[in-house]
Amino acid sequence: MALDQLSQPQLRERERELSKRHDALRKKGLALDLTRGKPSSEQLDLSAELDRAWGGSYLTADGTDARNYGGMLGIPEARAFGAELLGLRTEEILVGDNSSLSLMYRYIAFAHQHGLAGSGTGWRDEAAEQGRPAQFLCPVPGYDRHFGICEHFGIEMVNVALEPEGPDMDAIEERVAGNPLIKGIWCVPRHSNPTGQTYADSVVERLAALPLLAGPNFRIFWDNAYAVHHLQDDPPELRNIMEACRERGTEEGLLVFGSTSKITYAGSGISFLGANPSNLASFQRHLAASTIGPDKINQLRHVRFLRDMSQLKKHMARHRAIIAPKFRRVLEMLEEALRDELIATWTDPPGGYFISVDTLPGLASEVVRLAGEAGVKLTPAGATFPYGRDPQDRNIRLAPTFPPMSELEQAMQVFVVCLELASVRQRLGTMERRDAKPSGEQA
Amino acid sequence: MALDQLSQPQLRERERELSKRHDALRKKGLALDLTRGKPSSEQLDLSAELDRAWGGSYLTADGTDARNYGGMLGIPEARAFGAELLGLRTEEILVGDNSSLSLMYRYIAFAHQHGLAGSGTGWRDEAAEQGRPAQFLCPVPGYDRHFGICEHFGIEMVNVALEPEGPDMDAIEERVAGNPLIKGIWCVPRHSNPTGQTYADSVVERLAALPLLAGPNFRIFWDNAYAVHHLQDDPPELRNIMEACRERGTEEGLLVFGSTSKITYAGSGISFLGANPSNLASFQRHLAASTIGPDKINQLRHVRFLRDMSQLKKHMARHRAIIAPKFRRVLEMLEEALRDELIATWTDPPGGYFISVDTLPGLASEVVRLAGEAGVKLTPAGATFPYGRDPQDRNIRLAPTFPPMSELEQAMQVFVVCLELASVRQRLGTMERRDAKPSGEQA
Repeated sequence: MALDQLSQPQLRERERELSKRHDALRKKGLALDLTRGKPSSEQLDLSAELDRAWGGSYLTADGTDARNYGGMLGIPEARAFGAELLGLRTEEILVGDNSSLSLMYRYIAFAHQHGLAGSGTGWRDEAAEQGRPAQFLCPVPGYDRHFGICEHFGIEMVNVALEPEGPDMDAIEERVAGNPLIKGIWCVPRHSNPTGQTYADSVVERLAALPLLAGPNFRIFWDNAYAVHHLQDDPPELRNIMEACRERGTEEGLLVFGSTSKITYAGSGISFLGANPSNLASFQRHLAASTIGPDKINQLRHVRFLRDMSQLKKHMARHRAIIAPKFRRVLEMLEEALRDELIATWTDPPGGYFISVDTLPGLASEVVRLAGEAGVKLTPAGATFPYGRDPQDRNIRLAPTFPPMSELEQAMQVFVVCLELASVRQRLGTMERRDAKPSGEQA
Repeated sequence: MALDQLSQPQLRERERELSKRHDALRKKGLALDLTRGKPSSEQLDLSAELDRAWGGSYLTADGTDARNYGGMLGIPEARAFGAELLGLRTEEILVGDNSSLSLMYRYIAFAHQHGLAGSGTGWRDEAAEQGRPAQFLCPVPGYDRHFGICEHFGIEMVNVALEPEGPDMDAIEERVAGNPLIKGIWCVPRHSNPTGQTYADSVVERLAALPLLAGPNFRIFWDNAYAVHHLQDDPPELRNIMEACRERGTEEGLLVFGSTSKITYAGSGISFLGANPSNLASFQRHLAASTIGPDKINQLRHVRFLRDMSQLKKHMARHRAIIAPKFRRVLEMLEEALRDELIATWTDPPGGYFISVDTLPGLASEVVRLAGEAGVKLTPAGATFPYGRDPQDRNIRLAPTFPPMSELEQAMQVFVVCLELASVRQRLGTMERRDAKPSGEQA
């Protein structure tokens, strides 16, 4: 029964019952964690051959000894693999080390502090001329670590709604046109983190045209982190944005990111930056000051293990076989407990690593707090928004992949009790305040 | 016979003969490279077991799964290993990825652009208050990639002479005292690049006291890149600078760097930053914005392969067995060709990766040019000095480790001919100018 159909005594009864269950859960001394999109051990085991069976020659496709220094753009076969993975050309790929986040960070450090087109062209410098910080558009809810990089550099973040088809393009175009302060936009275009959308073709087309409206040195950060991470058959296709950019001559404004972190080993994968070759060349020159080159052996290891897209598809199907049941179980438990109560909505994502739950407005922090009391760590409320501030305090990101099924079930039992308890208490509070305040009276 | 003992006709004869030999070498179409301190394939083969035989558990000493995300400071056993290698405590070590240069770069980005003690304390900000760039002291000759980082950030470099016992401490103390613009100093304290000294104890003691003289946020960059890379028995010991700092309470001013790049694989090793724990904590917070953590599997692989200091010593003896003969051969060829000519001096280093040659003043660029014409690539003249400017144009860095012996010999034949040819031509030019200019006449 919907919560707002319950009478005050019914709500009081429900609150007592839920409080009791919450107390009982607290006493269990659980220590469970639903915070981060980490692969489980079982998933990591899928890549055991990465270390064991690749051996043999250290020579790369162009005859380089992968063990020695150098090779800033990555080994040819890893560049070709990244190109296929991300729908780009081999010459558009730089292969990095274990963290695509590092590539994003370093590109922003380059663009903001140093200048894409040389001294004085830093985003910081260009914005300082107007006495303002540089700005980024952030579709919300989004990925906390993207926002963290902006905050680190003092780049001002501007929220944009993420709708079922992708970010609100009307709002974006209006913001960008004639505003040279806006230097970039974060996008997770496929199985978006945390809400699971894949951007519609029309949205991709409009994004590809965005650099035409934008000021100098604007960049789209296209974090295709879940390019092949499907949970259902026939997931929605994603329009190739580089092709859309090429049609408009806006390739310079596009940066594509990806990695094998959620394909092989989360902490020991390889990462990719896709960009047009002139963009890549200037970034490479920037990087050269700071490194002796990437770990080319790990690139070799990965290419020999993952081989090609057909092999990769099979590998990803094995991941799906492990994690899809966990997603299904979370959805079942949400459905069973909350179906009729109208106190939350949630996503049923065709891919990616998260289920996104929206509580009634104003309750996310309280739910996270209650769950924490009962030994279940949830991603802090607000984390999916810039500056950790969810304006409606309602979004909670659940990450079902890491815990074993039994722990996941325990954690979800706690979660639904906390969500119900917070909702009932809120409803009760509202009724009590209403009763205490004769109609027409001003507080 | 010393060149300055030859008559003009003798010199002309010698010039003709050397020119002929140079021409003949040119026609051979050689393509040899003495530029970089790269390990040879034979050396890289010493670590074949790193990949092949380490397998088994991915659990680290504290039970972490090395395959997953996180662990910014590195796995416990790799931290312990780095501590032993660098003479520090385990809690003073952060283990990074394949490039200690990256750790130096990132620390400088942190200190210069962001601020070690928060917003407004960046070296850049502190120097800007005086309308100047921040400055670094650079013992010369030194490592070109250190200088490259300073140049990248617009940090002004100040040359300091590197003497047989280490950098000229009188000059350094004078520069640093009362000058808050000076923010750091580069040191390669053992088997210095390229000149091979190990700093004397007294120099280490005075360096450890330097932060007491310096302004805020000053740091010693102690790049102990060749900590265990000996070429001779009983190489000079290096005083433990962290201990010397602790005696004076100056630990906060010290950063120690090291890596396994020239122990295992040049491009796929692990790196170390040693610093006192509070320093490490602030740097770790800074790094957190940019990465999901280091490649912990590679750390595990390294620790299981290198094991401990006694195993490491044996491993380094195998390196020495491969490269010491190359150093000896280079020295023999220099000796044979140049012993009596008094046109160059060179080092006989007890460790490290380089032989440093000083030509007569004004000749290094010309020697490098002539060698290039004959197909031998040498490190550009000036590379061992800030901004690529050797004030006397005389230092040339030879890197004997990478080429096979036969190529090394060929390259050295070219080198000595070019060195002699340039020297003879310079001497002839001087004599001819003197003859053309009757004494007492003004040009």
